[in-house]
Amino acid sequence: MALWSGRFERDVDEFTQRFGASLPIDRRMYRQDIAASIAHARMLGRQGIVSQEDAQDMVEGLSAIRESMDQGGFVWDVGDEDIHMAVERALTERIGAAGARLHTGRSRNDQVATDIRLFAKQAAGRLMEENCRLRRTILEVAQRHMGVVMPGYTHLQHAQPVLFSHHLLAYFWMFTRDHTRLEAARTAADANPLGAAALAGTTYPLDRAYTTRLLGFDHEIPNSMDAVSDRDYLLDLDYACAVSMMHLSRLCEEVVLWSSTEFGFITLSDSYSTGSSIMPQKKNPDFAELARGKTGRVYGDLMALLTTMKSLPLAYNKDLQECKEGLVDATDTLRDCMAIASGMLGTMTVNAESMLAGAGRGLTAATDVADYLAKKGMPFREAHEVVGRLVLYCEKRGKGLEDLTADEFRAASPLFGDDIAQDLDPAGIANARNTYGGTGCTAVERQLDEAQERLKKDGREWAAPDLPMQ
Amino acid sequence: MALWSGRFERDVDEFTQRFGASLPIDRRMYRQDIAASIAHARMLGRQGIVSQEDAQDMVEGLSAIRESMDQGGFVWDVGDEDIHMAVERALTERIGAAGARLHTGRSRNDQVATDIRLFAKQAAGRLMEENCRLRRTILEVAQRHMGVVMPGYTHLQHAQPVLFSHHLLAYFWMFTRDHTRLEAARTAADANPLGAAALAGTTYPLDRAYTTRLLGFDHEIPNSMDAVSDRDYLLDLDYACAVSMMHLSRLCEEVVLWSSTEFGFITLSDSYSTGSSIMPQKKNPDFAELARGKTGRVYGDLMALLTTMKSLPLAYNKDLQECKEGLVDATDTLRDCMAIASGMLGTMTVNAESMLAGAGRGLTAATDVADYLAKKGMPFREAHEVVGRLVLYCEKRGKGLEDLTADEFRAASPLFGDDIAQDLDPAGIANARNTYGGTGCTAVERQLDEAQERLKKDGREWAAPDLPMQ
Amino acid sequence: MALWSGRFERDVDEFTQRFGASLPIDRRMYRQDIAASIAHARMLGRQGIVSQEDAQDMVEGLSAIRESMDQGGFVWDVGDEDIHMAVERALTERIGAAGARLHTGRSRNDQVATDIRLFAKQAAGRLMEENCRLRRTILEVAQRHMGVVMPGYTHLQHAQPVLFSHHLLAYFWMFTRDHTRLEAARTAADANPLGAAALAGTTYPLDRAYTTRLLGFDHEIPNSMDAVSDRDYLLDLDYACAVSMMHLSRLCEEVVLWSSTEFGFITLSDSYSTGSSIMPQKKNPDFAELARGKTGRVYGDLMALLTTMKSLPLAYNKDLQECKEGLVDATDTLRDCMAIASGMLGTMTVNAESMLAGAGRGLTAATDVADYLAKKGMPFREAHEVVGRLVLYCEKRGKGLEDLTADEFRAASPLFGDDIAQDLDPAGIANARNTYGGTGCTAVERQLDEAQERLKKDGREWAAPDLPMQ
Amino acid sequence: MALWSGRFERDVDEFTQRFGASLPIDRRMYRQDIAASIAHARMLGRQGIVSQEDAQDMVEGLSAIRESMDQGGFVWDVGDEDIHMAVERALTERIGAAGARLHTGRSRNDQVATDIRLFAKQAAGRLMEENCRLRRTILEVAQRHMGVVMPGYTHLQHAQPVLFSHHLLAYFWMFTRDHTRLEAARTAADANPLGAAALAGTTYPLDRAYTTRLLGFDHEIPNSMDAVSDRDYLLDLDYACAVSMMHLSRLCEEVVLWSSTEFGFITLSDSYSTGSSIMPQKKNPDFAELARGKTGRVYGDLMALLTTMKSLPLAYNKDLQECKEGLVDATDTLRDCMAIASGMLGTMTVNAESMLAGAGRGLTAATDVADYLAKKGMPFREAHEVVGRLVLYCEKRGKGLEDLTADEFRAASPLFGDDIAQDLDPAGIANARNTYGGTGCTAVERQLDEAQERLKKDGREWAAPDLPMQ
Repeated sequence: MALWSGRFERDVDEFTQRFGASLPIDRRMYRQDIAASIAHARMLGRQGIVSQEDAQDMVEGLSAIRESMDQGGFVWDVGDEDIHMAVERALTERIGAAGARLHTGRSRNDQVATDIRLFAKQAAGRLMEENCRLRRTILEVAQRHMGVVMPGYTHLQHAQPVLFSHHLLAYFWMFTRDHTRLEAARTAADANPLGAAALAGTTYPLDRAYTTRLLGFDHEIPNSMDAVSDRDYLLDLDYACAVSMMHLSRLCEEVVLWSSTEFGFITLSDSYSTGSSIMPQKKNPDFAELARGKTGRVYGDLMALLTTMKSLPLAYNKDLQECKEGLVDATDTLRDCMAIASGMLGTMTVNAESMLAGAGRGLTAATDVADYLAKKGMPFREAHEVVGRLVLYCEKRGKGLEDLTADEFRAASPLFGDDIAQDLDPAGIANARNTYGGTGCTAVERQLDEAQERLKKDGREWAAPDLPMQ
Repeated sequence: MALWSGRFERDVDEFTQRFGASLPIDRRMYRQDIAASIAHARMLGRQGIVSQEDAQDMVEGLSAIRESMDQGGFVWDVGDEDIHMAVERALTERIGAAGARLHTGRSRNDQVATDIRLFAKQAAGRLMEENCRLRRTILEVAQRHMGVVMPGYTHLQHAQPVLFSHHLLAYFWMFTRDHTRLEAARTAADANPLGAAALAGTTYPLDRAYTTRLLGFDHEIPNSMDAVSDRDYLLDLDYACAVSMMHLSRLCEEVVLWSSTEFGFITLSDSYSTGSSIMPQKKNPDFAELARGKTGRVYGDLMALLTTMKSLPLAYNKDLQECKEGLVDATDTLRDCMAIASGMLGTMTVNAESMLAGAGRGLTAATDVADYLAKKGMPFREAHEVVGRLVLYCEKRGKGLEDLTADEFRAASPLFGDDIAQDLDPAGIANARNTYGGTGCTAVERQLDEAQERLKKDGREWAAPDLPMQ
Repeated sequence: MALWSGRFERDVDEFTQRFGASLPIDRRMYRQDIAASIAHARMLGRQGIVSQEDAQDMVEGLSAIRESMDQGGFVWDVGDEDIHMAVERALTERIGAAGARLHTGRSRNDQVATDIRLFAKQAAGRLMEENCRLRRTILEVAQRHMGVVMPGYTHLQHAQPVLFSHHLLAYFWMFTRDHTRLEAARTAADANPLGAAALAGTTYPLDRAYTTRLLGFDHEIPNSMDAVSDRDYLLDLDYACAVSMMHLSRLCEEVVLWSSTEFGFITLSDSYSTGSSIMPQKKNPDFAELARGKTGRVYGDLMALLTTMKSLPLAYNKDLQECKEGLVDATDTLRDCMAIASGMLGTMTVNAESMLAGAGRGLTAATDVADYLAKKGMPFREAHEVVGRLVLYCEKRGKGLEDLTADEFRAASPLFGDDIAQDLDPAGIANARNTYGGTGCTAVERQLDEAQERLKKDGREWAAPDLPMQ
Repeated sequence: MALWSGRFERDVDEFTQRFGASLPIDRRMYRQDIAASIAHARMLGRQGIVSQEDAQDMVEGLSAIRESMDQGGFVWDVGDEDIHMAVERALTERIGAAGARLHTGRSRNDQVATDIRLFAKQAAGRLMEENCRLRRTILEVAQRHMGVVMPGYTHLQHAQPVLFSHHLLAYFWMFTRDHTRLEAARTAADANPLGAAALAGTTYPLDRAYTTRLLGFDHEIPNSMDAVSDRDYLLDLDYACAVSMMHLSRLCEEVVLWSSTEFGFITLSDSYSTGSSIMPQKKNPDFAELARGKTGRVYGDLMALLTTMKSLPLAYNKDLQECKEGLVDATDTLRDCMAIASGMLGTMTVNAESMLAGAGRGLTAATDVADYLAKKGMPFREAHEVVGRLVLYCEKRGKGLEDLTADEFRAASPLFGDDIAQDLDPAGIANARNTYGGTGCTAVERQLDEAQERLKKDGREWAAPDLPMQ
């Protein structure tokens, strides 16, 4: 029989019980639930709402339950709807009537909100740590391969030679923004709903500031109805995960491209590759593909929660129970995928020669050739036109710009001098772009420093401490 | 060590192994996997690609493995990447070298496609059965309450009185369309990819028509690359689930509304209600809310797969592994929610008097009053205007149309006679709409017959047979 | 003043009017709206609900309005909320009181449902035509390049050589399934809601079968509440568009890959390429990228409608107004993208030599080498292992299998004879796979015939006829 | 002929031109484009990259073009692909060769990123203003109706009496969080990509800090490849819009419920209602429904952009062109819907008596009755049980708790005294909850002050200034 069964005449049957139960997913949050109950119990005692002895019994009983759950010794009862019921039942079995007083001035509505917020804060903190780990790897790989030149692409067409480190650092900044979003989600979660009770607050003289302090929250939520019906912080976290997965999908797409025979820019470590059951030669970038594919599930988790929240009247509705699985799925998935990406990048071999060969081949120097003319006074649009014709000339002959003679250049425009040759070297081209944010070595060195600086700042603080207990 | 490890020098570590593994979800498909392997083995033997003895050993070994899995005795190895590897390893342990010949002319790419298609067919069949069960319930409730009048709503405002049965039958037809979509998804899954091998077919003289027959597929897929990279049938199934969940969300929204104090149209059975941990009076329509909330996750499953499939080049990519969990989640969820809806509707109490009171109160007769004038020759637009003013007159006095005297009517238009009174009875109004599809009793009786007929047709055939074995 | 303003005391202001108006999108459906009104008018006259003269005046007036809209001469009034009001107002201005009788026995709720269904049917029909056009192009390109060998990919790694035609035909079958989905959506739309009125049917003796016949619908919708609140057919159409865009995104991804410098498999026509404002050499596959990118908006349209429909109680709610823009956007987008894809494929140059070179290079023969051993009696798993080691041997020396001597083969296994050489030719390998659906020439020829056959069947009937008028 | 056409031999035809063009949506951003060009021109002159005279001519020419666009006099050419080309063409026509020098050291890739960022910043700023306006309205309505008691709901069942102002303030805090999200999106957009050129930076000595200052950006983007391929800030803005629409959907759902006959809590102003074309009595909450329905399109816009961004390799890809329409649609939609919500709330009539009647009826006092027992020493769980049985007793007799005699109470538990009566008054119950965040008058007064404070802080700064020109 459920704890709320006074007004009911018949029990729900097994199927409906299973359908309604959230325990399978709630169990992931037992530490949060018990921490919140301990804080509540201590506050009840301190305010004299229950006796000091009862409060003490509750705290000790709850700590013991947590310990038995930590050690896997706790006996779960399928009849428990949720983690709150499971814990309260065990407490009452353990300490008797005092256990039945724990729920004074509290409802499952504010209790579950507290649990999820504690869980979300911790999950966000862990993701921030993993995010820093991934950025550190990117930074190291960029530093290690400083000077390697590759073709830069737009539209997946060769555009201009760039430093491989510059290309990689673009991802550093993407993931930096993800860190900002994760931090915003953590901040959104960092408010205490405890004391909102069912929806309206309670008639007991609760001290909400005290539980706030015990649980490490930043402040109390100022409206009890909002406190029990708000799940924005989970949307924020799901969203931060979704964007970060999008970034990973871009990175993984490039890893897949780069490890193809056609590109040949990198070789993945055996540890981050798998084979085929039928084709003996295959060395597949499975992990990159999986991480890319998992983008779908995290987008799905976000869309699921947005859909569930749509059009819900105030205050608590049971629909909200659905928010937990998506939260766990999205945060677990992102964390795993960042770890995979770190491992994959950190262990891959960079084939610098293939990259350079790609960068120097053909037409990637065209912009610099046009700039050459523009610097000699020709309006850029005109120079673009002249070089466009030169490109067509090359293509019809299967040549690259680097294959043209000085005469062929001059036939296109008399402004070309012999010095055009030195504008065709890919490393030189890449290096010539040293305005802030450019791909030139000086600019990239500066960028590396800024990245290092930023990482130090972000990496500082997110050691996710254990939940406050006792 | 994985079975494909010949070309590899280092093993992947435990985390990456776990990340890459699909066994936890694959296990749901062991019967499909073994059925497909048995069909393949029999075909290999029949075509002389392996010896008859080997084929026989394979079939017996596979049957034994299935039996041990059925009975929970199978020892799963966490080192197995997927169900295919688990089964093949067990087979080789059991029957030796012959086991290693099972994979001849086959790849995991066509194997997994076969498994998922068999699974999807069965899942669709079961959903069709549950769908018929739900529609049968709706039909029974509609028949049982024939004649009950309620307010019909547009914009959640009282519009015109309707029969409760008519209202319910609208859902019957929604779910009928879902049946059509589920059948389309089943048909989409009903094609045999076995024989496509990795992507290109094989050099072995396979008889694809024979495995098609053994596995109960409709036909062979005509292009091997499409065979291994197509997941449209899962999208079709996810989509059918999503729309059906949308229909359920509408039904559940109404159940929640109807069981509110304000509406009071129905009382849910205790078996389909839950209480509050703090408020003793609460009897919450939790199951309706949960089913409504679960709409989100199924939308999310659909969006996840659409996202995963986007921009994948041919043929097989590991991203496709992600399609399985969403499939299981969406089909399990819909099946449970339909069962819940059946139970909830079948056991609820209909408060006919509250419904009738709502239907007769106020202004729901206004359209019929306007029609009264129109039938006396006033253009409808003008009649609408006259009655609009009458409505305003009522509102200012807090009256319903039923409270007006004949003189008050005549003051609005001399066309009103004393017979207007009989146009104000809600049951009469509802009953007056007997054109095909209308809410009048005759029309609804006819609709019930058509619904019955359709149900008979749909309910006929979807007994999901056990998978073909041996 | 709006036509429904009898009960209102104040008019809505301009902003709210603009916010509430659907005319900007409705205008796309004026032909549907007028066709439906003509059918309704003829039915009213035939049933004696209005006089024959009035009916005749309505039909003529409506025809004249349509003509003036066709010719761009119609003066739209921003005060009209929607197309229904615009047409009815113009009719009343033109023919007087008879115009005010048109709305007898009808509501905007069934009227708008009729319009959208007619629009959706036509849109689906046109998409089916464009779909056939695209498939015809694919078929022609496949026929034209029969015999061209390219590397087949899994995981974007070289897997086995395949015919380019075989690869292309995989898309033929994807789009064939889209045709099936479009047809299902068209069928879903093909039911007549006219006569459902606001939600409950009417008291007038309408002949719904007659308007069904006049408008070319398949049958009448059997429940009036369902008739005005159902938008499943639009979901079906949005969904069909979404899946088809997904297929296009895969095709376009490959076009982008193939036209990269690294792959070099195709050269797009100048007509389907664009340049850069800064880099003179660029020839970008912009159209392929745009079509790939537009996948997002069509997924978004589907998600939008699913979200809007969630949890709506019966019957009509204003939320439904939102379904129109997504419908127009999704169908226009898919139609354009299919046309672009047809043009792009039909005009591209296929670089057969690059493809063949890619197919013959390196390790794509590995499966056939393993099959060679398996056919000499070695269990396939063992053969896979042997060849895996051979592959590793090659990689360490930078060789392809085609570079190995007979002795090197024999060192790996004594089963290798000199005849292994002939198993290394890519064209030979591709050609050896002639089981049904395989990439061998014979199998692909057969596939081309089946595709031709299917196209004939699908292409037959979808000439979207003009809307029934008069 | 396009400006990039030097290397092309054939022009794209009209359909492909229309397909590829972004001008129809770009036009919304002409002020941004011209502002960015003016800043670029001034920087080019200042750095001596072009002559001072040329720079001056550019600035004047651009200003004149903007003026002609402002006044509607600009002649748009359908041949222009995008706003950049349209402006540059017009400039060259106007000032000759100097115009052709404007594009020096710049690419459309950094140019479009600059335009969109300026547009997004302004759009976010305007949304923040509208957001404050809506919150101000909520605050005023809450203040005006201070003391009105209504039933508080969980699961749409009566839970406990609450102040209407408290209920409304829950929305105040939701929209406060939206303000935070909008500000985060604005901050994300507030970085200058100009100078990134195509993807790699340029060889010209650009002064990026100077254009940053001129355009009012916070800082320069540190990586040129990230600068041209990042659209996170649009995702952030789309996401902020999506969550805010979700909040509006909840509010509008309640408006629809509250204005139903059954609830009767509010009466919408005629200005925010519409009628029916057939039912003269109807007064529909169309605007609330529309705003609720539009949630779908904004979710769709978010999903569209997430989908489009998935798996794009670096750097710029044409897929990114698709981000603009969703941006405009999402921000326009949210802005309109917030304005509608402000108007609707600000003009509605609150039926305080209906609300109070609802709050006092039946069983909403149950929690307080249980608390009564708990305060007399009974453990809460036991008290809950006792009151549960009392509730059942009431229901069977069709009574409310307020109808019970003191004896009936005492029959349930001897702890009940005569003073129980005063615990049954809804206003008293609501008022008894004065812990921080509760629904008691004191607590709500304090909450109103905090809300006022917060609004002052948020409302301060977001006057969206006109774009920096000259």
